[in-house]
Amino acid sequence: MGKKIVIIGGVAAGPKSACRVKRLLPDAEVTIIDQDSLISYGGCGIPYFVSGDVSDEKELRNTSFHMTRDEAFFLKAKGVTVRARTLALSINRQEKFVLVEDLTSGAQESVPYDNLVLATGARPNILPIAGADLDGVFTISDLHKAMAIKDRIARGEVGRAVIIGGGAIGIEMAEAFTDLWGIETTIIEFMPQVLPRLVDWDFARMLETHLRESGVTVLTGEGASSIEGEDGKICRVVTPKRTIEADLVVMAAGVQARSELAQAAGLLVSALGNIVVNERLQTSDPDIYAAGDCIEVKNIITGKGGIAPMGSLANREGRIVGDNIAGIPTRYKGWIGSFIMKAFEHSIAATGLSLDAALAEGFAAAAATTAQSDRAHFFPSQAVIPLRLIFDLKTRKVLGAQGFGPMNDAVLARIDAAAAIIGQGGTIDDLSQLEMAYAPPFATALDALNATANVADNLAAGRLRYVSTKEFLNWMEDFTSQPDWVALDLRHPNEAKSFVAQCGKDKWLSLPYIEIRERHQELPENKTLLIICDAGTRSSEIQIFLDHVGLVNNLVLGGGFNLIRRMGVDWWPK
Amino acid sequence: MGKKIVIIGGVAAGPKSACRVKRLLPDAEVTIIDQDSLISYGGCGIPYFVSGDVSDEKELRNTSFHMTRDEAFFLKAKGVTVRARTLALSINRQEKFVLVEDLTSGAQESVPYDNLVLATGARPNILPIAGADLDGVFTISDLHKAMAIKDRIARGEVGRAVIIGGGAIGIEMAEAFTDLWGIETTIIEFMPQVLPRLVDWDFARMLETHLRESGVTVLTGEGASSIEGEDGKICRVVTPKRTIEADLVVMAAGVQARSELAQAAGLLVSALGNIVVNERLQTSDPDIYAAGDCIEVKNIITGKGGIAPMGSLANREGRIVGDNIAGIPTRYKGWIGSFIMKAFEHSIAATGLSLDAALAEGFAAAAATTAQSDRAHFFPSQAVIPLRLIFDLKTRKVLGAQGFGPMNDAVLARIDAAAAIIGQGGTIDDLSQLEMAYAPPFATALDALNATANVADNLAAGRLRYVSTKEFLNWMEDFTSQPDWVALDLRHPNEAKSFVAQCGKDKWLSLPYIEIRERHQELPENKTLLIICDAGTRSSEIQIFLDHVGLVNNLVLGGGFNLIRRMGVDWWPK
Repeated sequence: MGKKIVIIGGVAAGPKSACRVKRLLPDAEVTIIDQDSLISYGGCGIPYFVSGDVSDEKELRNTSFHMTRDEAFFLKAKGVTVRARTLALSINRQEKFVLVEDLTSGAQESVPYDNLVLATGARPNILPIAGADLDGVFTISDLHKAMAIKDRIARGEVGRAVIIGGGAIGIEMAEAFTDLWGIETTIIEFMPQVLPRLVDWDFARMLETHLRESGVTVLTGEGASSIEGEDGKICRVVTPKRTIEADLVVMAAGVQARSELAQAAGLLVSALGNIVVNERLQTSDPDIYAAGDCIEVKNIITGKGGIAPMGSLANREGRIVGDNIAGIPTRYKGWIGSFIMKAFEHSIAATGLSLDAALAEGFAAAAATTAQSDRAHFFPSQAVIPLRLIFDLKTRKVLGAQGFGPMNDAVLARIDAAAAIIGQGGTIDDLSQLEMAYAPPFATALDALNATANVADNLAAGRLRYVSTKEFLNWMEDFTSQPDWVALDLRHPNEAKSFVAQCGKDKWLSLPYIEIRERHQELPENKTLLIICDAGTRSSEIQIFLDHVGLVNNLVLGGGFNLIRRMGVDWWPK
Repeated sequence: MGKKIVIIGGVAAGPKSACRVKRLLPDAEVTIIDQDSLISYGGCGIPYFVSGDVSDEKELRNTSFHMTRDEAFFLKAKGVTVRARTLALSINRQEKFVLVEDLTSGAQESVPYDNLVLATGARPNILPIAGADLDGVFTISDLHKAMAIKDRIARGEVGRAVIIGGGAIGIEMAEAFTDLWGIETTIIEFMPQVLPRLVDWDFARMLETHLRESGVTVLTGEGASSIEGEDGKICRVVTPKRTIEADLVVMAAGVQARSELAQAAGLLVSALGNIVVNERLQTSDPDIYAAGDCIEVKNIITGKGGIAPMGSLANREGRIVGDNIAGIPTRYKGWIGSFIMKAFEHSIAATGLSLDAALAEGFAAAAATTAQSDRAHFFPSQAVIPLRLIFDLKTRKVLGAQGFGPMNDAVLARIDAAAAIIGQGGTIDDLSQLEMAYAPPFATALDALNATANVADNLAAGRLRYVSTKEFLNWMEDFTSQPDWVALDLRHPNEAKSFVAQCGKDKWLSLPYIEIRERHQELPENKTLLIICDAGTRSSEIQIFLDHVGLVNNLVLGGGFNLIRRMGVDWWPK
C-alpha cells in the first residue's frame, strides 16, 4: 500500500482533502478521524434546515446524486476510511502517529501517518456572561444542535427567540425563526450595525430596515449583559437598555479556531489562535498540513493573516492540500472575503474590504456608490441594486465591493465579477472595461458594475465630490449641524414637494434636472448645495455643470434617494 | 465657446460620447447629426417591444427616470444639439467640416468641427436572393421597422413568420413572435447550428431543443434560396429542402459596418469594411474618432481586429472617445465577446472564444464541460447549469466560457466572472481560486465555475480523458461506428435500465458508482469504456480508479447525461 494519510476533521476541508488525495494517489491509505457521529455535511445549510426549506437533516449530508455521505459511503465510493466518534488526543510528530480515543468504547490507539491534515475547524464563541450555560442557549456549531433547535420549535416550545450576534449566521437564523415558524425574534448586535466589518454602515442599514419590515426586531450597539432563567431554563436576555423575554437564545458571536491539538504538538499558531501555514498549506511541520476554519489565511488585499471561516474556502483549501500531498505543487493565493446572504426577500453581498476596513488598513480609500437598475429599465422585472466600490485613490486598485438587491442572482453576478478583478489585482479601469454580458433581460448596456467603476474614476480624478450618506442623514435630523447646507432636489417636482413642505423652501430646493441649465441663476451662491436625485447619476452631471457656472460649493449624494429610501429614515415625509 | 465637436450617429456610441465630452468640457459645442427622426434608443430592446413586454416604443427611448431622449431633452438636459433627419453627405478633412443635408427641407449646409466622431453604426445584411425586396421582408435595424412589424402583427396580418438567421436577434424575434402572439415561427440558419461561432455545437443544440419545445421550428444547415410573393407581397420562403409559407420574413443574417462616409473621406477602413482606429479610438485622421458598430475592434484574446456590434461595447467606446477628446488619455483594451440571451424559459451565455474558434486560431485549445447545480443541491430552487471552459493546454490561459441554464441570473454570474478573468489574461488556476460569493441559496460551496476550472486543470494535467459529446452521440446512433465501445453507466440501476434494455447488455453496462471498487473485475478488458453519470463528476473519479486497476482504456462523457438530456436525442428511451 501507499502513503498513510490521516485527516483530523470530517466536515468540509477534511473530506475534500481526503477525496482529492485518494483520487491523485489511489494507493494511499486515507483515514478521516472525527469525534462526531455525523460527518461531511453542508453546515451552511443549517438555517435552511431549521426554517424547514430543507426538510430532513440527511439532505445536508447527501451528495447531489442523493447518497448520504456516511462512513459506508466514503469507504465504498471513495476508498476512504472514516473513524467517526473518535477523538484525536495528541500528535506525536517524532514517531508520526496520532493518539485517538474511540468515544464509544473508550479504547485508545495510535494511528500512524506519513502525512497528517488538521481540519479541526472552529468553535463558536461563548460569551462570558451569566446564564450562557442555561438550557435553551444554543450555538450553531453542528447538526446535532440544529436538530435540537428544530425539535424544540416543532414541539411548540419556542414563541420568542433572541439571537446574540448580527453576522450572517445570526441573520439567517432570524429569517428561519420568523419566516416559517412565526417566532418573535430579536437580533442583538454589540457593534453599531449588523454585518460589522463586512459591509459599510449604509448597506447594513438597508438590510436592517428590511429585517425590521420582515418582522425581526434588530437592536444594534447593544450587547447581552446576562441571560436569566428559571429552574435552569432560559427565560430572558438582559441588555444595558432592556430585558427581552426568550424561550431560546442563539449565540452567533463569531468563531475561534480549534487549534489546541496543533498547539500541544508544538506547531506554530498565531496570536489569535489560528494554525500558521505556508502557501502550500503546510504547518511549521512540513509533513503536517492544515485547512479550513482552523488556519490563518492571508488576505490578498492587505497581506495580513486572519481567520476566514467560510465553507467555500474550506473546500478550496482541502483540494490544495490534496494536491500538495500528492506531489502537485499548488499554491494558495489567499482570500479576499467574498460573501453573500439571503435575508427574506433581499440579498446582500460583498467582497474585499469595506470602506472602514480599507481606511483602517491605511489605504487611500474612497467609495463610489450607485443605485441603478440591474437590467434594462424597460424590462418588466428590473429592480434597483445599490452597489458600492471601494478603491485606492493613488493606485486606483479595486479594494472591495458591496451590493444589495432583490432575492435573485443579480447582486451575486456583480460581486463575483468584482471579486475576480480584485483577486487579479485589477484597477477601476479594468472594472470599467470589464466586458459583462448584456441583453435587456439581464443587464443594462453599461452594466451597473461598470457604471460604478466609472463613478469611481470620476471620484479619483476629482471630477465628482460626495457628501456621505451619514453626513446627509445627520443634517436631515438636525439642520443646525450644517447651517449652510441646502438640498437641491433634481427629481420631478411631484417627488420633491413633500420634502419642500416638510423642510421649508430655504432648506429644500426643488429644481428639476431638465431645467437646471436654464434656471441655475435662481440657486443661492452662499450655500453648500447637496445635489440629490434618485440614483446619483443626474446629480453627478449637474455638479459638473454647476462647477462650470461658478457654483462650485456643492456635493453629490451618491446613490441618491434610491439608497436613502431603502435605508428607511424616520423623517421620511408621508 | 470651446471646441466644436460633431458626432455623426445618434443611437448608442454617438450620444454616449456626446454626453461624456460635454460633461468633461462644459464649454464645448456638441452636435449630434442623425438621418433618423428617432435617436438614442435601446435597439437591443426591439424584440421585447415586438413581443409586447415593452408596450410603447417610447420606453426604449426613455431614461431610467422616465424622460424621452429626444432633441429637446438633449438640448435642455445635456446642452447637446441634436440635428435629427439630417444626412451627413461628406467630410472635408482639410477644412474640417461635414456637409449635411436636412432631409425635410433638402437644404445643404457645412457643419464645422474641431473633432469629429463617427458613430455611424452598422446595417443588416440583405441576402442577395430573389424576393428580398418583397413587402413583408424586414430587417431589425431601427425603431421604425420594429413598429411596422408590430403593427402588422397587431392587425392580425401575420400568422406565419420565417426568420432567416439563427443568431441572437433572430432567436429573440422568434420568441417575441411565438410567445405572446402565437405566430407559427420558423428559424432558418445556414450554418449547422444556431448561434454559430458564439457557442459550441452541444450548447447550441441545448438551445435548439428548448426552442423546439417552445414551439419554434428550427432548421439548421439550411439557407433561404429565394423568397416568393404574390402582388409584391411575401408568401413563402424557399430552401433547397422545402417551401415554408410565411406572411412575414425577418432577415437577421448579420450586419455590415456603415463606413462609406469614412471611406470617401480617405480614412483607413479594414478589408471587411470597418473603420480602423487606434487604442484611443482615433481613426487614421487624429482629429476624427470613431466608436460603435462601425469600427474594427481588437479581440483581446486573438489580437485580431473585427466587427463587434454590441450595444454594451458601443456605450463603453463612446465614453472612451469622450475622454480622449477632452484630453483624458484613455485606452480601449478591446473586446472578448461576452454575450447573453433569454430564450423562453432559459438563458444562454458565452464569453471569449468557442472551442472551434480557439482551435481555428491556432490555440492548443481544450474544453472542460460540467453540468452541476447552480446552488446548493438541497436548496429548493436549485437547477443544473451546464458550463464549459475553453482553455489553452500550454499556457493554461482561459480562452472562453459558455453556460446554459434557467431564465434567471445564475448563468450571467458565472459568465461575467469568467469574462473578468479572461479580460485580465488569467489562467485556469486563477479561475479555480476565484473567490465567488457563497451561501446555499446562491451557489455551491465550490461554485460550479470553480469546479469547471478544476476539471480543466485535470484535463490539462492529463488526469482526465474525454469522449466528445459528438462522438458519443454518433456512436449512440450507430454502434458499428466504434464497435469496441461500451457504455459504463454509473447511475442508479433504475436510471440505467431502459438504456440497457434498448442497447443490449453488451453495449450498455450498468454498474453503480458506489459498487465499482468492489465489482470492477466484472468489466471487460478488451473494450473502450465510456464512463457516464449525470454531471460527469463521478465519471472522472471512476476513470482514475479504473486507470489504477489497469483498465486504462476508458473515456469520460463530460457533463454526462445532464448535458445529453438537455440536448434531446431521438434514441432517448421512453
